[in-house]
Amino acid sequence: MTSLDEARARDASDPLRHLRGEFDLPEGVIYLDGNSLGAPPRRALDRIAETARVEWRRGLVRSWNEAGWIDLPMSAGVKISRLIGARADETIVCDSVSVNLFKLATALLERSGYDALCIDATEFPTDQYVAEGAARFSGATPKRIENGEIPENAVLIKSLVHYKTAGIADMAASEREARRKNCLLIWDLSHATGLVEIDAKRDGARFAVGCGYKFLNGGPGAPAFVYVAREEAQSLNQPVSGWMGHAAPFEFSSYYAPAQGVYRFASGTPPILSLAALDAALDLFEDIDMRLMEEKARALGDFFLESLDGAPLTALASTPRRGGHVCVRGEDSYAIMQALIAKGVIGDFRAPDLMRFGFSPLYNTFEDAFRAADMLKRLLASGDWRAAQFRERRKVT
Amino acid sequence: MTSLDEARARDASDPLRHLRGEFDLPEGVIYLDGNSLGAPPRRALDRIAETARVEWRRGLVRSWNEAGWIDLPMSAGVKISRLIGARADETIVCDSVSVNLFKLATALLERSGYDALCIDATEFPTDQYVAEGAARFSGATPKRIENGEIPENAVLIKSLVHYKTAGIADMAASEREARRKNCLLIWDLSHATGLVEIDAKRDGARFAVGCGYKFLNGGPGAPAFVYVAREEAQSLNQPVSGWMGHAAPFEFSSYYAPAQGVYRFASGTPPILSLAALDAALDLFEDIDMRLMEEKARALGDFFLESLDGAPLTALASTPRRGGHVCVRGEDSYAIMQALIAKGVIGDFRAPDLMRFGFSPLYNTFEDAFRAADMLKRLLASGDWRAAQFRERRKVT
Repeated sequence: MTSLDEARARDASDPLRHLRGEFDLPEGVIYLDGNSLGAPPRRALDRIAETARVEWRRGLVRSWNEAGWIDLPMSAGVKISRLIGARADETIVCDSVSVNLFKLATALLERSGYDALCIDATEFPTDQYVAEGAARFSGATPKRIENGEIPENAVLIKSLVHYKTAGIADMAASEREARRKNCLLIWDLSHATGLVEIDAKRDGARFAVGCGYKFLNGGPGAPAFVYVAREEAQSLNQPVSGWMGHAAPFEFSSYYAPAQGVYRFASGTPPILSLAALDAALDLFEDIDMRLMEEKARALGDFFLESLDGAPLTALASTPRRGGHVCVRGEDSYAIMQALIAKGVIGDFRAPDLMRFGFSPLYNTFEDAFRAADMLKRLLASGDWRAAQFRERRKVT
Repeated sequence: MTSLDEARARDASDPLRHLRGEFDLPEGVIYLDGNSLGAPPRRALDRIAETARVEWRRGLVRSWNEAGWIDLPMSAGVKISRLIGARADETIVCDSVSVNLFKLATALLERSGYDALCIDATEFPTDQYVAEGAARFSGATPKRIENGEIPENAVLIKSLVHYKTAGIADMAASEREARRKNCLLIWDLSHATGLVEIDAKRDGARFAVGCGYKFLNGGPGAPAFVYVAREEAQSLNQPVSGWMGHAAPFEFSSYYAPAQGVYRFASGTPPILSLAALDAALDLFEDIDMRLMEEKARALGDFFLESLDGAPLTALASTPRRGGHVCVRGEDSYAIMQALIAKGVIGDFRAPDLMRFGFSPLYNTFEDAFRAADMLKRLLASGDWRAAQFRERRKVT
């Protein structure tokens, strides 16, 4: 059995414990969102204020150059490159995961001439939706596959960390098989970046997209990123050919000419307030050993599950390596999660019956994990959530 | 001849003069950016702070519901609807102008089966670039047209206010001709929205995109908008089918089903910090008579040009109605604009030889116009800009 003392002892010996001080979490909240929105780093909040009150208000349009706004897609991209094992000029921050996935998938379908865009039927729904649209508009067929199969002569979208099980795919093995089968693999690194060790170069990954607002803590709806290996980018033409992806956007020529490498994947003017927040948050990761991060996330999840021991809940099976969240299944999961959130333990619900708890190694502690599990156990035992459910159902709407 | 006294007298009788107090412009600056970035309304700066420090920091993921983040694309869209003469449910705020233009053009090409996507060769370059990509990707041909011609059996992209001449197209006449010729007209309202009177319903406009960071003052790279008439939207399928455009995004179903009407044009998660700033800025327009805005913008530009009388500059010809900026052409425009900016008069340069001055009826005054013209005339007479040009060329880089 776990205990509060044990939790505190583990926190005391945690080599990443100093990072919690970078965050200003509200009193009375154990934040285990898993992960629709990372908590705000203090430096991101400061940067937002600076961007608004100094750069926009005082600098006005001059800040595009003087405050470096125009370079943010690239400079934030360089910081993400380090986290995914890419070279500095292989990543750009722009648009949303959906838009980036669309651009990358359509560009690969066009170049390859493949007639199938594949995605596992258990993948994150928005990736499946985007695959449908991208395939249809490319004259290809969207195909649902199963059990992590790698298709032949096709483009495949695959998450490195699964949004429900948190299972981590074997990137190197998948890429080896993909190359044998002439499969072009686009990794969705959304639930992985800023959390687990990723080495795109070592493992042969050539294409990826990922999210800025989960474990990168870039803020609500933070811009996303695209990674394309240098040797692949020059022969790809993405269809959303806006001026930010032009080789010389300020020459105002009438014809499109794609920028070098991955930078051609930019499209319109980026949302600077949101992008600056992400850029600041990324500096948190500068000196962090990502192996320690992955280990700690895993350990926090394990400690949470051990602390739940005896509760009438079933943990979703995962893989030997696991990402930053755990999912448990039980009766009335939706109502229980609502009651838990009302008590300050913020996880999330995923239809039809999962409670998901995310552990950020940057700011979550073993004490958080212990207290959250304890609260959940006591809630289940007390039946308090039934009262909340009853009140909810009687609400005048 | 104009005079400072005359300028002040016109400011004193300006029915919109109270609006300048909504802005906190820096001392020593006359802001005539025309218009890459509108100045920050005080309420937008306050809203950014609230969104970051209260909603993100305290509310965390709960703010998606409790602070209404999830509704912002629609609620900001309602506010823009009023400014363009659309019905409340016909406009949504999302992505950038480039991405929105791509989505709308490809959806129209698909539905119509037309094989040409047309755009005037003098249109804003990024619209031309997007037209190339959208056409190619749709199996259509991008065609440059001239002199405002309306093509037959084609999709056409057209600005309401031209980015150089500020000429205002005749929306009603263009739409009548477009209908006769089976042309589907997408309006780019970027330089028009928040500045001139637009009545999409009265004039028969069915499709439009527009920008949030120019005369709407939504902040650097603020999200853009899409307008699609209700009776057209249900039969359009845009290709970037992300979860925010799904009929039921939180059911996490595996298959895409488009949301009602224009809301299907949303794609990924929106950048909330940037979107909240725009949403706050839009409230400024709530009780404004757009006819007064257009008249004042025109009057400010005219007063500026009159005040330039005698200077060795040529104003670009416009149309009887004109948007919020004027362009003048002269020798060494680039160097002169740099010198002018150094003296606090911020306009912008547009290749190859134009100085552009934008007048926002919200915060610019006749005194601004007079002083800017006076500064420009004195600069031209003194040759001071030559010294700056010389220094620039000797810079060690």
